[in-house]
Amino acid sequence: MMNIPTSNRPRVVIIGGGFGGLALAKKLKNKNFQVVLLDKHNYHTFQPLLYQVATGGLESGSIAYPIRKVVQDYDQIYFRMANVERIDTENKKVVSDIGTIFYDYVVIATGSKTNFFGNENITKNSMAMKTIPESLDIRSLVLENFEEALQTTDDKEQKALMNFVIVGAGPTGVELAGALAEMKRHVLPKDYPDLDFNKMEINVIQGANKVLDAMSEKSSKKAQEFLEKLGVKVYLGEIVTDYKDKVVYTKSGKEFTAETVIWTAGVMGAAVDGFDATVIQRGNRIKVNEFNQVEGFTDIFAIGDVATMMTEKTPMGHPMMAQPAIQQGELLASNLVRLRDGQSLKSFVYNDKGSMATIGRNKAVVDLPKFQFSGFFAWFVWMFVHLMSLIGFRNKLVVFWNWMYNYLMFDRQARLIIRPFKNKRDER
Amino acid sequence: MMNIPTSNRPRVVIIGGGFGGLALAKKLKNKNFQVVLLDKHNYHTFQPLLYQVATGGLESGSIAYPIRKVVQDYDQIYFRMANVERIDTENKKVVSDIGTIFYDYVVIATGSKTNFFGNENITKNSMAMKTIPESLDIRSLVLENFEEALQTTDDKEQKALMNFVIVGAGPTGVELAGALAEMKRHVLPKDYPDLDFNKMEINVIQGANKVLDAMSEKSSKKAQEFLEKLGVKVYLGEIVTDYKDKVVYTKSGKEFTAETVIWTAGVMGAAVDGFDATVIQRGNRIKVNEFNQVEGFTDIFAIGDVATMMTEKTPMGHPMMAQPAIQQGELLASNLVRLRDGQSLKSFVYNDKGSMATIGRNKAVVDLPKFQFSGFFAWFVWMFVHLMSLIGFRNKLVVFWNWMYNYLMFDRQARLIIRPFKNKRDER
Repeated sequence: MMNIPTSNRPRVVIIGGGFGGLALAKKLKNKNFQVVLLDKHNYHTFQPLLYQVATGGLESGSIAYPIRKVVQDYDQIYFRMANVERIDTENKKVVSDIGTIFYDYVVIATGSKTNFFGNENITKNSMAMKTIPESLDIRSLVLENFEEALQTTDDKEQKALMNFVIVGAGPTGVELAGALAEMKRHVLPKDYPDLDFNKMEINVIQGANKVLDAMSEKSSKKAQEFLEKLGVKVYLGEIVTDYKDKVVYTKSGKEFTAETVIWTAGVMGAAVDGFDATVIQRGNRIKVNEFNQVEGFTDIFAIGDVATMMTEKTPMGHPMMAQPAIQQGELLASNLVRLRDGQSLKSFVYNDKGSMATIGRNKAVVDLPKFQFSGFFAWFVWMFVHLMSLIGFRNKLVVFWNWMYNYLMFDRQARLIIRPFKNKRDER
Repeated sequence: MMNIPTSNRPRVVIIGGGFGGLALAKKLKNKNFQVVLLDKHNYHTFQPLLYQVATGGLESGSIAYPIRKVVQDYDQIYFRMANVERIDTENKKVVSDIGTIFYDYVVIATGSKTNFFGNENITKNSMAMKTIPESLDIRSLVLENFEEALQTTDDKEQKALMNFVIVGAGPTGVELAGALAEMKRHVLPKDYPDLDFNKMEINVIQGANKVLDAMSEKSSKKAQEFLEKLGVKVYLGEIVTDYKDKVVYTKSGKEFTAETVIWTAGVMGAAVDGFDATVIQRGNRIKVNEFNQVEGFTDIFAIGDVATMMTEKTPMGHPMMAQPAIQQGELLASNLVRLRDGQSLKSFVYNDKGSMATIGRNKAVVDLPKFQFSGFFAWFVWMFVHLMSLIGFRNKLVVFWNWMYNYLMFDRQARLIIRPFKNKRDER
């Protein structure tokens, strides 16, 4: 049993302190619920900027925010660090590694995790970038590669150390490739004057026939142009089939010898156990109705990446990004009040505010519902929107200051190998 | 063999990029040496602020600085990440995990490491705080304890989780105790409103009969007063003899049941192998003459914590802190030039600029050679001196901003469990 006081208020258990879970928790403030918020970390991660942690542009603490601080002054809210194992829907309880807890309502807001599509070699040998520790591991590995490249006299080995393969050209893959390309241009040659940076390659391998598959044709073309201008090689319509003994293999027969492969080619819902197979849809997402109720339940909800709400407009569910999660979390707060008070629920309607990606300094693409733009202004908009979306004044200011510094000085100062990664990988 | 080009300049190998090693490397800029700088990390650590990383006041990247950035624009300087195993004095080479390298001159600037005085239980169960990863482990452990304390209903277990024993009341122990006490006052009760913070204890156990043993009687008294005002319990003249099954034992028979013991009670020189036992003095420090030459050699030097220069004024060697290391590094640079050019060397004379320690907001003590002061002004001086001593404009500004924020908001925002520590400890 979790050590949480009983209350005469109905209890809402929220699993996950990401964008959706936190938006919901905030809106439930002083709404006469007892709220129990669970997350495996004690901080919220601002995932859109993980790639900047991985490339030394930001420290990890600048994009993390203590969850307890968010909910500090709320009445009857209990945060617990816990790994949820399953939901016992029959007995209405959540089972976790720190004990079980009964719920009146439970909201699954567990987000998504990397999908390696069952390939064991890729799972074992490539790097994912969904969490802060994973980003820090990438940062260490990238820098360790260059330190090692200095010490080898074998040309082939040196090239493998300086070859970075990014699988997947969604926003994460594109932004990471761009950031690595800028490090190649402005930072690394100054740090490693003995290395020949013509040997450094950044290869992006994309399964679809365009980068930023979910964006407009125009933005997608522009993003590819930006990447190529920065020296990134983009391969479209290529499927990676394996990665072993430092070689990446593709379906069409291409091979890349690289020490580092970063896998951004797939995400899947981080669904929790306890449901029939029919509830779990494509991409391991949980099927919900227009009120985010999990199919077959009135007291169990799923929001954000882990939920798939299949409507006429969204036959595959909503895009797996922050905006749908936040909007669903906010609506659900008021729907929980309605449900408790016996009123009828409001349907979710996604307000698509657009999407964007940044490739490098002065280089970004923005899709608004009505029009698209790119270049310096898009880059400025991207920065402004991300800065404003960060939680907390301190984080905003620290990130702003780091961006100013990085921009003016062409620098990335967090290029620190705080915890070497290579030995750890060899051991796994 | 390390992969470093040969040169017609004499080669100086510097082992360690701490205060001494970096001061030396900087002064050797454009002095017609080939300089090879080795360190096991790719960054310089500003050790005096490690305790703020451990207590969530600063992010680790704010007190670390990439060594490659320091030496970027120097001519013929080669930095390598390496663990030095020994010095082969006969063949004039340094042996490391990335190969060997010949030297004309070698400087041992390896600093100090934690001294557990051979006690296995203490080595295994207590926490040291000499590196950034160690500070981050302490940060994780402290916060994990509170998360766990919420979940237990056993009063004794809860008290052990909330009991922090710091062994040693030198500057590190005192500053850490003060910072924990401020977290207890201003930060933790807001994060954990369900916990009774009367149960939280901070116990400082000091072997000597005063805290800050190396400082003046006045400062030492004042520091103890500050600590006690913050609720820290100080035990003087107590020797810790063991720590097992969560109990700390002292010589006089005292026992403390605590999940967390931080060991700041001893440091020893991080001497490298390759010397006769007679060269290694008390505290594992290497005996040097007034030119920092290792006894019996003219081409091997040791500076800073790892060196002990026994003069009439300093029969036990200089204090193990930044100032002697920096001053010895700077003098050695000019002595290396003199040595190469056949001139006579200059003796080292320590310029004691004083010492200081901070206990909490508006609470610090400063010993200058001529007089002592404490309180708000001392605290202000402490901040100013530390800020100015940080390398790099970005770090100065980020630390300054964090301090402003922490001071005004009574907050410590880096209270993030990025890498949980407890499981790791259980495995060791």
